Amino acid sequence: MEEKKDYSKFALEYSRKYGGKIEIKPTVSISSLDDFSIVYTPGVAAVSSAISKNEDLSWEMTWRWNTIFIITNGTRVLGLGDIGPLASLPVMEGKSLIYKVLGGVNAVPIPIKTKDVEEFVKMVKEISTTSGGIHLEDIESPFCFEVLERLQKELKVPVWHDDQQGTAAAALAGLINATKLAGKDIKKAKLVMIGAGAANVALFRLLEKYGLDLGNVVVVDSNGPLYSGRSDSEQMKTKNRWKYEIMEKSNKSRVSEIERAFDGADAVIGFSKPGAIKPEWIKRMGQKPIVFANANPDPEIHPEEAYKAGAYIVSTGRSDYPNQVNNSLIFPGLFRGILDSRSSKIDDLTAIAAAEELAKFAQEKGLNTNYIIPSMEEKDIYPRIAAAVAEDAVKRGFAAIRESREYFYRKARKIIGLD
Amino acid sequence: MEEKKDYSKFALEYSRKYGGKIEIKPTVSISSLDDFSIVYTPGVAAVSSAISKNEDLSWEMTWRWNTIFIITNGTRVLGLGDIGPLASLPVMEGKSLIYKVLGGVNAVPIPIKTKDVEEFVKMVKEISTTSGGIHLEDIESPFCFEVLERLQKELKVPVWHDDQQGTAAAALAGLINATKLAGKDIKKAKLVMIGAGAANVALFRLLEKYGLDLGNVVVVDSNGPLYSGRSDSEQMKTKNRWKYEIMEKSNKSRVSEIERAFDGADAVIGFSKPGAIKPEWIKRMGQKPIVFANANPDPEIHPEEAYKAGAYIVSTGRSDYPNQVNNSLIFPGLFRGILDSRSSKIDDLTAIAAAEELAKFAQEKGLNTNYIIPSMEEKDIYPRIAAAVAEDAVKRGFAAIRESREYFYRKARKIIGLD
Repeated sequence: MEEKKDYSKFALEYSRKYGGKIEIKPTVSISSLDDFSIVYTPGVAAVSSAISKNEDLSWEMTWRWNTIFIITNGTRVLGLGDIGPLASLPVMEGKSLIYKVLGGVNAVPIPIKTKDVEEFVKMVKEISTTSGGIHLEDIESPFCFEVLERLQKELKVPVWHDDQQGTAAAALAGLINATKLAGKDIKKAKLVMIGAGAANVALFRLLEKYGLDLGNVVVVDSNGPLYSGRSDSEQMKTKNRWKYEIMEKSNKSRVSEIERAFDGADAVIGFSKPGAIKPEWIKRMGQKPIVFANANPDPEIHPEEAYKAGAYIVSTGRSDYPNQVNNSLIFPGLFRGILDSRSSKIDDLTAIAAAEELAKFAQEKGLNTNYIIPSMEEKDIYPRIAAAVAEDAVKRGFAAIRESREYFYRKARKIIGLD
Repeated sequence: MEEKKDYSKFALEYSRKYGGKIEIKPTVSISSLDDFSIVYTPGVAAVSSAISKNEDLSWEMTWRWNTIFIITNGTRVLGLGDIGPLASLPVMEGKSLIYKVLGGVNAVPIPIKTKDVEEFVKMVKEISTTSGGIHLEDIESPFCFEVLERLQKELKVPVWHDDQQGTAAAALAGLINATKLAGKDIKKAKLVMIGAGAANVALFRLLEKYGLDLGNVVVVDSNGPLYSGRSDSEQMKTKNRWKYEIMEKSNKSRVSEIERAFDGADAVIGFSKPGAIKPEWIKRMGQKPIVFANANPDPEIHPEEAYKAGAYIVSTGRSDYPNQVNNSLIFPGLFRGILDSRSSKIDDLTAIAAAEELAKFAQEKGLNTNYIIPSMEEKDIYPRIAAAVAEDAVKRGFAAIRESREYFYRKARKIIGLD
């Protein structure tokens, strides 16, 4: 993990050289004054007038069909914590760049300041007025749980919080394939989840909807395993009701010590911090232990150490190791499919549809312990996920454009520029 | 004015074909997974970390140095009135396109819904967090006067309301040259201003700061000339204090009938509606009458009719007649200069600096009655205005980048792509 320093150096150099990673470009070329009369006044009045009579035309006649806004308040940026909206901008620009390159989506970063739930929700609702959807990013928990729930109910366009659903969907895809490869039944798997922030709380929700027996799952926060009746559980009811719900649903044996939670476990899934998974705990796990050390950029345990302790499969959040669990595998294709089907909604089942397609893609290529999940460079995953997500939206009645999976796949390949 | 219908037809066709006039594009080309490690994690953490320690670096390392947000609530869109934020989007996209093509500026349209001053101001302040400036557009008066005043005081970045300052600056440039050509002294000119909305209220402010004797100016609203003690003047104090101020400062003879206001007038400036200037009124004006019939797209009086009534110079807001008074002549270069000098402020004197440069440009080319103001196709006006505005910001102490006029001119030409 030495090259990290070089990436930092390159990133600083590139940022200065290019002065930002994205820009606005016209889709139409302007060659004369006459062209302005078409793209601007007087011609444009006819377009505005048409939309004022039929709002649906905004999807055909403006950039809305392909445009989302990336909104953050910069309270939980990478491993840097609450660095605020302005310092979060380079990350949001990076996200926007990935959206365009891998998904063909216009994603405009709009970091804002407020840390108040009501204000944040109000702000996003206003900003979303002319968008095709909203991408939330790098917002601390439990604030992020509250705003996602509120916006899913109150927004007219689909909303996605990448650190919840995106990260969880990528992890679910990895877990589907890792358990398959190890010959384990995921639905009965004994899991330990280290960290109870955005990613693992969302993954817990996905696992529930995917049909896992949650009694076999132990989620660990900074005070140890969550379980019903833990001394802070009453407090959690108001402070973090999502954690409270996990306390009630998981860990039926009420295991209260981390190391004991590992006894006979099939998989450990870390979205926590370096050092949060110990080699001796891996030794207590069952056969063919699966270790997801996904903290970014520095994993909970170094892959070498995890293998030395007996791990069968190891994933990280890093691109310089095999099995990178990376939300960039999900979001570009997912929003491509949402926009192309003009879906009004993204929910946890949308995330599961994307995860299953990602898992299937790797299965078709052939799984092995160093390949449980595709890499970002396998570019066909993006139109594949787009098609799966669009098909899901059509089936569940959220799509305004009700076409076939093949149609959405072809359309996505074309927009992304693969054909 | 027959081709208007064709422009509408083309505009509708183009909008459908291109699905919006602007898009997001990467500034950096991505060729491998390794590149993502620079533009995104892990490399990007170093950039965010650097900005979190020194906010000024956001001007060098993100798109902020060249990015503004276009904000509207769609309450006064072209001649269409309050069509709302969604239907305003085609106009905002057109503005964004012009910003890029003529000024090299990234301008992101963010139409929002609120019609409440407090909410609007709060929203713009939040959205502006990562921007280099704010462009307000198509907001009804007197709401627009209130929010511009508030934002000029409360925002950390410069703010511009194009329908006030942009339109007024273009009109001032035209008036400087029209009076010059007609051999009149602008500072003593007898003016009739038809319409008391955003454009004329802002022009009145500019004329005051330019040194005109306001007692010779008569401003007309839908109830006739404004004057001190008009029956609704007490009401105006609270309903529209900007109009109240005009009542107090203008029309020292307290002329109460429109036609009498025209007696011996040097110029009439309309920002109103078709039919608002009558031929018989022009006949009452002084020698070499100047008629600005700038309502868009349809002027207060047809140019042919105005000439027939004796007009010496006629301007309109249309590109198919000579002397187009058009804010597109101002805003692209103005914000280029503001961004390049990293100015913290735009005020009425900034607008005057831009107007004077625009007027000077036409003077250098040689004025005649069909050329009192440059056309949008004379591309050197944009870097010229950028340089004038940047120099003004340096001189008045608002600029963080304190370079020479020549430096800003060269820089603007390069960014706009003229060299």
